[in-house]
Amino acid sequence: MKLLKDRIVAEGRVIGDSILKVDSFLNHQVDPEFIMELGREIARRYAAEGITRILTVEASGIAVAMAAGLILRVPLVFAKKKKAFTQDAGFYSSEIFSFTRGEAVGIFVSDKYLSSSDTVLIVDDFLAHGEAMRGLVDIVRQAGAKLAGAAIVIEKIFQKGGQTLRSEGVRIDSLAAIAKMGKDGIVFAE
Amino acid sequence: MKLLKDRIVAEGRVIGDSILKVDSFLNHQVDPEFIMELGREIARRYAAEGITRILTVEASGIAVAMAAGLILRVPLVFAKKKKAFTQDAGFYSSEIFSFTRGEAVGIFVSDKYLSSSDTVLIVDDFLAHGEAMRGLVDIVRQAGAKLAGAAIVIEKIFQKGGQTLRSEGVRIDSLAAIAKMGKDGIVFAE
Repeated sequence: MKLLKDRIVAEGRVIGDSILKVDSFLNHQVDPEFIMELGREIARRYAAEGITRILTVEASGIAVAMAAGLILRVPLVFAKKKKAFTQDAGFYSSEIFSFTRGEAVGIFVSDKYLSSSDTVLIVDDFLAHGEAMRGLVDIVRQAGAKLAGAAIVIEKIFQKGGQTLRSEGVRIDSLAAIAKMGKDGIVFAE
Repeated sequence: MKLLKDRIVAEGRVIGDSILKVDSFLNHQVDPEFIMELGREIARRYAAEGITRILTVEASGIAVAMAAGLILRVPLVFAKKKKAFTQDAGFYSSEIFSFTRGEAVGIFVSDKYLSSSDTVLIVDDFLAHGEAMRGLVDIVRQAGAKLAGAAIVIEKIFQKGGQTLRSEGVRIDSLAAIAKMGKDGIVFAE
């Protein structure tokens, strides 16, 4: 998606050879109309899949999931990273390792909002090692729901998470896929 | 806002005399078009205030802030609850106590995305004891920005957070204000 790649080049900051910061429009500050463009593209790709629910994980996935949900006219559910005191008894859970935060966290989804009658589109901001995605796929399977696929804003394909998931038959759509990055800049995959 | 009150009555679940769960449309599952209605109402109330940025805190505030940002055509910034390894050096921070989670957490906003030239609208899903709101107001003040006010989806006015902040001169707009709740149901304030 050219609009997205252009913005990553203009505003993204590469730290070392694996960290890309896009805090100016995606995961700290959010540009709402730009995020709606991403949502429109995601909705276009999954328009024929009979999606009934979008699944994401707090916090950075929520804005993009909201945009896609608005266009597809379906609810979104965001997995919570910590079981709040007010959480109900019935939930699906999975454990993921966050490389950003350097720790394992549990993710939780109430069984009220995901069931075997759902066709689910997973939406997230980044796909790198695939830890969060693996947890979300696990939760979809626990619910017995149909997984239509996963739409990712930025995939760092050199970190292999997407490759592994695709080899397991998961459809993954990245709006921008980065083959390589470092001090010389960002190289997008074709 | 009648639409919201009706939905709280229809779908909200009261636990004890102080916990209201609205997980079906606001803070776990999200109904995008309904959230847009809330965003439109918030935007209507602040249309003349020259808002340049919306400030919220991850995670439940993001969808509503996104909706308001879309209508007001301004970016939103969500405060992060934990300083990620990839966070920059320059940030504003405040500490808040989460009654839901039973622990104190720091909230962080990069100084790149909030400055003294901003007129800020704070948006959040709940206002109860006012801890999160106090932290956000603190961050707006650290930035030297002008605080136009705070728009809240549901205020539990019996928990006094709003009362204290209003007495300090903060404008607070609640779309639904709950005077009392318990086993006999929910009583909204006029």
